[in-house]
Amino acid sequence: MNNFDTLKPLLLQTDTKILLLVMDGLGGLPREAGGLTELETARTPNMDALAARGQLGVSTPIAPGITPGSGPAHLSLFGYDPLQFVIGRGALEALGIGFDLGDQDVAARGNFCTVDAHGHVTDRRAGRIRDEEGKRLCQTLSQIKVAGVQVFVEPVKEHRWALILRGENLSGDLSETDPGVLGRPPLPVQAHSKVAQHTADVVNDFIAQARELLKDERPANMILLRGFAKHPGFPTFDQVYGLKAAAVAVYPMYRGLASLLGMNVLDTGASVEEEFRTVIKRWNDFNFFYVHVKKTDTMGEDGNFDGKVHVIEEVDSCLPLLTALKPDVLILTGDHSTPATYQSHSWHPVPTLLASAWCRGEASAKYGERDCRRGVWGEFHASSIMPEALGHAGKLARYGA
Amino acid sequence: MNNFDTLKPLLLQTDTKILLLVMDGLGGLPREAGGLTELETARTPNMDALAARGQLGVSTPIAPGITPGSGPAHLSLFGYDPLQFVIGRGALEALGIGFDLGDQDVAARGNFCTVDAHGHVTDRRAGRIRDEEGKRLCQTLSQIKVAGVQVFVEPVKEHRWALILRGENLSGDLSETDPGVLGRPPLPVQAHSKVAQHTADVVNDFIAQARELLKDERPANMILLRGFAKHPGFPTFDQVYGLKAAAVAVYPMYRGLASLLGMNVLDTGASVEEEFRTVIKRWNDFNFFYVHVKKTDTMGEDGNFDGKVHVIEEVDSCLPLLTALKPDVLILTGDHSTPATYQSHSWHPVPTLLASAWCRGEASAKYGERDCRRGVWGEFHASSIMPEALGHAGKLARYGA
Repeated sequence: MNNFDTLKPLLLQTDTKILLLVMDGLGGLPREAGGLTELETARTPNMDALAARGQLGVSTPIAPGITPGSGPAHLSLFGYDPLQFVIGRGALEALGIGFDLGDQDVAARGNFCTVDAHGHVTDRRAGRIRDEEGKRLCQTLSQIKVAGVQVFVEPVKEHRWALILRGENLSGDLSETDPGVLGRPPLPVQAHSKVAQHTADVVNDFIAQARELLKDERPANMILLRGFAKHPGFPTFDQVYGLKAAAVAVYPMYRGLASLLGMNVLDTGASVEEEFRTVIKRWNDFNFFYVHVKKTDTMGEDGNFDGKVHVIEEVDSCLPLLTALKPDVLILTGDHSTPATYQSHSWHPVPTLLASAWCRGEASAKYGERDCRRGVWGEFHASSIMPEALGHAGKLARYGA
Repeated sequence: MNNFDTLKPLLLQTDTKILLLVMDGLGGLPREAGGLTELETARTPNMDALAARGQLGVSTPIAPGITPGSGPAHLSLFGYDPLQFVIGRGALEALGIGFDLGDQDVAARGNFCTVDAHGHVTDRRAGRIRDEEGKRLCQTLSQIKVAGVQVFVEPVKEHRWALILRGENLSGDLSETDPGVLGRPPLPVQAHSKVAQHTADVVNDFIAQARELLKDERPANMILLRGFAKHPGFPTFDQVYGLKAAAVAVYPMYRGLASLLGMNVLDTGASVEEEFRTVIKRWNDFNFFYVHVKKTDTMGEDGNFDGKVHVIEEVDSCLPLLTALKPDVLILTGDHSTPATYQSHSWHPVPTLLASAWCRGEASAKYGERDCRRGVWGEFHASSIMPEALGHAGKLARYGA
């Protein structure tokens, strides 16, 4: 039984509002042993004041020791068990570029590659061609017509692009064409199940046309396709929580993911303050807001400890814009850790803060990893944040008499 | 889905090394209320220095309130859920005496018992005969021949021994012969499934011959057999973690268990220092080392609080031998608690320390039960120690994009 089955019969419709503020990659590590993390270093008087009347804890996004990608990490925050709710690579790539993936569409990750005179792959990334070159070649491939199917070829970055097929009876149950090693020809796509044979024929037709269109190009004279996947068709926020949800995010990946869960993705400016002002503008239209701040993660990936501290302080300074709205439940967290010293996503638990009228409160606590670990909320799986929020918002009836 | 299914697609081959140092029965209790435990009492400057740059937590071996035997406790430490990976009693008894149990062997726990003139059991342990008497009687039973099956009768202690059958098509799916109460005759063995009928016939043949051979002995004139079980055939460390694993342990039980999981069991001297020097000698040959120190548990079982403190201090003083090897991940833990005041294994969580370059660090902590409970690692099931170690060792790829 997952959370949803337990929650469903308990859901109540109330006027209360929940605001989930995600600072991407928030969790960190000390610069040197015995030192402070990025969040512990940051001056965060507004967050600390929230902690005093709230509760602190640390969340595990996936499982101990496991480093999450952004997709699974966000699903977990939204209460969708990331081991159960899996988004195929192709669908995630399409979401990541903001493509409006339909329920019946099949998406795949595409690479431009280089093949020699025998058709054997000599460079799986075609020398990482420039974005402009990738875009031009995608336009070339967009000429391809396959009977009964609408074809979209969308550039991603450098040699990477996304293929989306739209039509009836399509399936993602296909093998990939990447031979995995150099010196071999790209593989034809094979259907893993009978129902996928039609789609396999469609894709192989597409590949044959692409080979012809690209044969005189250099260095990108062939394609590889991987990660065929359909729109995952997850239940929406409305269905599982009865929430009218809005998303405020700038990057396509997070906007796509929110859209996938049925959230209303709002137009917004890119700065933290502009994102917060978008919430203010639409405050009366929804009872759940997801707000995504990307720069904490970017600074962590860049190894910029001070830069990450600065972004956190910027969020803190803008926070009164949100607290002035008096959300019934305000949650501050990250989707995962991206310690500046590690320069990558990591497995470390994420410092998490929930403020509502119904918290035990943290006397003299600072919002930071170690105070969170000792906080009254303790440690928990990230997928329990949503039920906790619903409870604090009075949106769950008593279980049993 | 267990840990293994989640981890398998993420495993990376790297040069990093993990060292798991298990002080058997490490967890303890204060000598008097409000006092310090054995580990808290011990002077452990080297362990405390590791904690400062590492992370502390407490691990639950099986489940709250449940006291583990050594087998399940170690399986849990090795990441094998002890409720799922069950080693039959007979197989565990054979491992415990260092018997090299084969894949197809069936093992059982044997007792010498006393029966009266009607063949009714009057003492299920034959007055706990001395070890020498048990050994002599085992030699007597070793004469027994059963067609098509090789029979091993191995003394364990006092009235206890192990029966191992080696042959084709053997099964452990058998009932036991112990009637459970006095005044009844031993039961014949019955097959729980059709495939086990052959083995039931073999065992009943063995029992009939044993009755004949022992009839003039006093007080041990009959046998009882329990816990029939085959070699469990668990997946190995190489299969589940991609690790080339070595075990440094002195006692047969731990050597047998390590061997069962495909670890290379190294020849070693018996003292803590000799065990650590064995690690040094073979450091370049493996990327995972399990080192087992037994005396902490022995002192606990003996109720020797000061003795246990002394063993912990001995381990601490030898620890620089291991830290000088610069393992990428060094874990100190116990398999369970054996408080000297309790004089037995117990259910209490186990103080656990992990040191790597990627820990949040414990400012001014002492390695001990209460600091561990407040540590940044928090509380966790012992079976999550291995995934945590793999994460810190950079041996796990990101989950999802």
